[in-house]
Amino acid sequence: MKLVIIGGVAGGASAAARARRLSEDAEIVLIERGPEVSFANCGLPYHIGGKIEKRSKLLLVSPERMKSRFNLDVRLRSSVESIDREKKTVLIHDLDSGRKYEESYEKLILAPGAAPLRPPLNGIDSPGIYTLRNLQDMDRIKSALDHGVREAVVVGAGYIGIELAENLLQRGIKTTIVELQDQILPPFDREITTPILKKLHSEGVEVILGDSAESFEQTEDGLIVHLQSGRQLPAQLVSLSIGVRPENQLAKDAGLKVGQRGGICVDESLQTSDPNIYAVGDAIQVKDFVLDIPTQIPLAGPANRQGRIAADHVFGRSSTYRGTQGTAILGFQGLTAAMTGPSEKVLQREDRAYRKVYVHPNNHAGYYPGAESMTLKVLFDSESGKLLGAQAVGGQGVDKRIDVLAVAIQAGMTVYDLEEMELAYAPQFGSAKDPINMAGFVAAGLLRGDHPQIDVAAWSAFSEDKRPWLLDVRTPEEFSAGHIPGAVNIPIDELRPRLEELPQDQEIVTYCKVGQRGYLATRILMQSGFSVRNLSGGYTSYLQWTGEI
Amino acid sequence: MKLVIIGGVAGGASAAARARRLSEDAEIVLIERGPEVSFANCGLPYHIGGKIEKRSKLLLVSPERMKSRFNLDVRLRSSVESIDREKKTVLIHDLDSGRKYEESYEKLILAPGAAPLRPPLNGIDSPGIYTLRNLQDMDRIKSALDHGVREAVVVGAGYIGIELAENLLQRGIKTTIVELQDQILPPFDREITTPILKKLHSEGVEVILGDSAESFEQTEDGLIVHLQSGRQLPAQLVSLSIGVRPENQLAKDAGLKVGQRGGICVDESLQTSDPNIYAVGDAIQVKDFVLDIPTQIPLAGPANRQGRIAADHVFGRSSTYRGTQGTAILGFQGLTAAMTGPSEKVLQREDRAYRKVYVHPNNHAGYYPGAESMTLKVLFDSESGKLLGAQAVGGQGVDKRIDVLAVAIQAGMTVYDLEEMELAYAPQFGSAKDPINMAGFVAAGLLRGDHPQIDVAAWSAFSEDKRPWLLDVRTPEEFSAGHIPGAVNIPIDELRPRLEELPQDQEIVTYCKVGQRGYLATRILMQSGFSVRNLSGGYTSYLQWTGEI
Repeated sequence: MKLVIIGGVAGGASAAARARRLSEDAEIVLIERGPEVSFANCGLPYHIGGKIEKRSKLLLVSPERMKSRFNLDVRLRSSVESIDREKKTVLIHDLDSGRKYEESYEKLILAPGAAPLRPPLNGIDSPGIYTLRNLQDMDRIKSALDHGVREAVVVGAGYIGIELAENLLQRGIKTTIVELQDQILPPFDREITTPILKKLHSEGVEVILGDSAESFEQTEDGLIVHLQSGRQLPAQLVSLSIGVRPENQLAKDAGLKVGQRGGICVDESLQTSDPNIYAVGDAIQVKDFVLDIPTQIPLAGPANRQGRIAADHVFGRSSTYRGTQGTAILGFQGLTAAMTGPSEKVLQREDRAYRKVYVHPNNHAGYYPGAESMTLKVLFDSESGKLLGAQAVGGQGVDKRIDVLAVAIQAGMTVYDLEEMELAYAPQFGSAKDPINMAGFVAAGLLRGDHPQIDVAAWSAFSEDKRPWLLDVRTPEEFSAGHIPGAVNIPIDELRPRLEELPQDQEIVTYCKVGQRGYLATRILMQSGFSVRNLSGGYTSYLQWTGEI
Repeated sequence: MKLVIIGGVAGGASAAARARRLSEDAEIVLIERGPEVSFANCGLPYHIGGKIEKRSKLLLVSPERMKSRFNLDVRLRSSVESIDREKKTVLIHDLDSGRKYEESYEKLILAPGAAPLRPPLNGIDSPGIYTLRNLQDMDRIKSALDHGVREAVVVGAGYIGIELAENLLQRGIKTTIVELQDQILPPFDREITTPILKKLHSEGVEVILGDSAESFEQTEDGLIVHLQSGRQLPAQLVSLSIGVRPENQLAKDAGLKVGQRGGICVDESLQTSDPNIYAVGDAIQVKDFVLDIPTQIPLAGPANRQGRIAADHVFGRSSTYRGTQGTAILGFQGLTAAMTGPSEKVLQREDRAYRKVYVHPNNHAGYYPGAESMTLKVLFDSESGKLLGAQAVGGQGVDKRIDVLAVAIQAGMTVYDLEEMELAYAPQFGSAKDPINMAGFVAAGLLRGDHPQIDVAAWSAFSEDKRPWLLDVRTPEEFSAGHIPGAVNIPIDELRPRLEELPQDQEIVTYCKVGQRGYLATRILMQSGFSVRNLSGGYTSYLQWTGEI
């Protein structure tokens, strides 16, 4: 077997290592355009900020080690210019010597990755405008920062944009983020992102939403970024992080099928439309595991698994790729946002019947010091309760809950299963009723009809004259510190004797701080014949929705 | 409906709250022997050590709040002396007034908990000997510590014993733990506990294994604890934490069925042998969810869920309890040990066919600062690969991985599913190949035959003359810093050209530090016709087995 792999980072490197483990005899050629293989993409922003001090840490495996340990033919600074599928050869351009030569293959694995988008704006090629994809990009940004950058503009508030902003902050750079959408972190639903947005602001990062860079003007002092709104932002460094596009040119030129959004099409064995050619990683179109529709989700974990599976298949094994859930996570100054499965926006776009709940539990027992609160949003099928997606934001423990929910989604579990989960509890680690159990109780209560709920989006959609009667069951102190306009305050512990103050002929919506007292109020009112719904996530969800916290 | 609940802590309090949510009309009487309801058992040691400063934090809900919010008839300092199942009454003893009176019930929920064992040893009733079950016990221990305790002996190295030792340490008390078994934390397999044992030692706690307290002698300075071995330990405070027994007397006297080990027998609706009487919490015998055999697992999470389910059933709902996995966790001075599902010892006792693997990954990407390593042991069915149990010990992230595996066990997943799990990855939180994926690769490789393994227990069981040829594929530096006796060192990167140094006619066992290079060596040797197995978990597992780390 002669296996040629194009691209030596996550997917390509995994494929190469796996291939060698499966076959000592195979000839394995690993072709990489850059000067390194297998570097840590996800660490790039943190070397810029200095959190990862040594650049060498980002080189996970040296090319020499790759060669010696896995007995690979590693060719660096080599670009593949074309594939001849008939002859089963690739044309390789040695970027250092300039030499071009053919290399034959029996099987070919494409792992070219995705390239940062660089829209054709006026002045886009001015010095000082960067994208961040590899170590060389990182070096350039770092070097710029070492030479007098005072102000930076980050275009795009996705994962990389915010990670970069955190690291610019670390270096004392005045940073502004510009994002076209009306929220940061576009893969998430908006209300989940507001705590991160608030934190960006409180840390001194200006975030401009609903606006975009239109052109870049060179000045004596660096650049002026002209926004669509007319605003002008001075900067000595601009970073573009508005997304990536699959590196599909080679595949397209070779006549391989690519999807609508540019991802190389593969089947569940990761074979392209040519069975001798596989493709893995950020360059491909994958199946959305939950929705069973094509999608593109550039993530390191899936890329590694795909590399492994493609190598398996090359050597006759029947491994298949089950699709991608899109489990992803962001850390920003002690806050974490994470998600798995489709967002509510995507479920709406796909016209999928779903329900949702919000809870705001602590990461561990409140009586043990250091508890931090989180917001957990769970999306599930309206009928069966099958889990569809989840998002969380908060302090410690967000990653754990999203991982638990990622596994539950993989297993096809329902909200009823969440009620029963037996998770590790000691007061430093969790609660006897874990946040996951709480979400399960609330969601199952909704589906069983025990706990009718309305979410803030639906509440906000009522015209003012049609709004239900709004009952705030928190304490008078909480109420006077802030409440939803129009609410009447009857504290939960006084509710039973004061039921006659409530309207018999009108729907009631009740709420508390996070939903728990509101739930009890709902139960009391339901059993007394009132028509009532509890506001999911309570006043906390309301404030996250309006953007106030 | 008139519901009487005996016991007002975890299970009882949950049942009461749930019952009220289900029915505003029901008469709900909550009878509690102590002066409080719903306190935080699991927090008791941490108030002793001062980590939880305020005692009031441990009172999760005041009796007054319980009464007003849930409209309950709460009767504190009230002990139920007997149940008359025919008349459907209980005889209540008001401990303050001394009055005894009958109370009728339609349904009864027993949530009496479990009492710490107090073996009938000579001197067991001497002053200075304590158990820790409730706030009053805690107050007594704390008060003793405030009055001149310098040395303490903790009898029993289970969760509570070690948590208490940590808090005694916090207060500067010279502490010795005495444990009858040859390991600490008896629910775990021994090798997983060695890092905690080492940490106890390095923090200054003496741990005496395989020994027990035989008698207690009062002296002028406090107590002498006489051990079976003849050793004598002076102490001003002795804490007994050798286990608990279900509080079953009331149930037994009423003729309700109890199990062999004393737990009250219940069906999946948590009904006892009398359908009008339910039982929940530490007092009951439950089904082991994985092994489907009766067991007793006193844990707060299950107790809370059982309370909820019993209340559901009282009010005509069909909720059932699925059994207990035994997910549990311990923190000690920055180290964590956690488990879910049966241990290897239990699988052996039950004669269950299983396999096991060990991995020692970092909690997050090694290139990001602060990574901490963990040991993860996964037990699974020999044929299907279905997950049976898991244990982990290490720093940050142990709780997350055990929770993930707890869910996987609940879902009936296999080691093959672990390979595919898509968990949240950014360098502060995980790895592109998460510890869970790594465990899956290693376990699936074992079952598929790609990665033959031997564990340290099996290696150690060989007589010296029958041992396979032992190949250490680490670097010469690693080898000379310590290796398994009898090993020959050929570094992995030199292995291919040096195959002729290996025996053709003898089984080879190979190892490295954690198992990864050993895996590659195994693949190389297998494909070259050698008979070879990789030592699961490598030299790290070897040292944990011998107790050296």
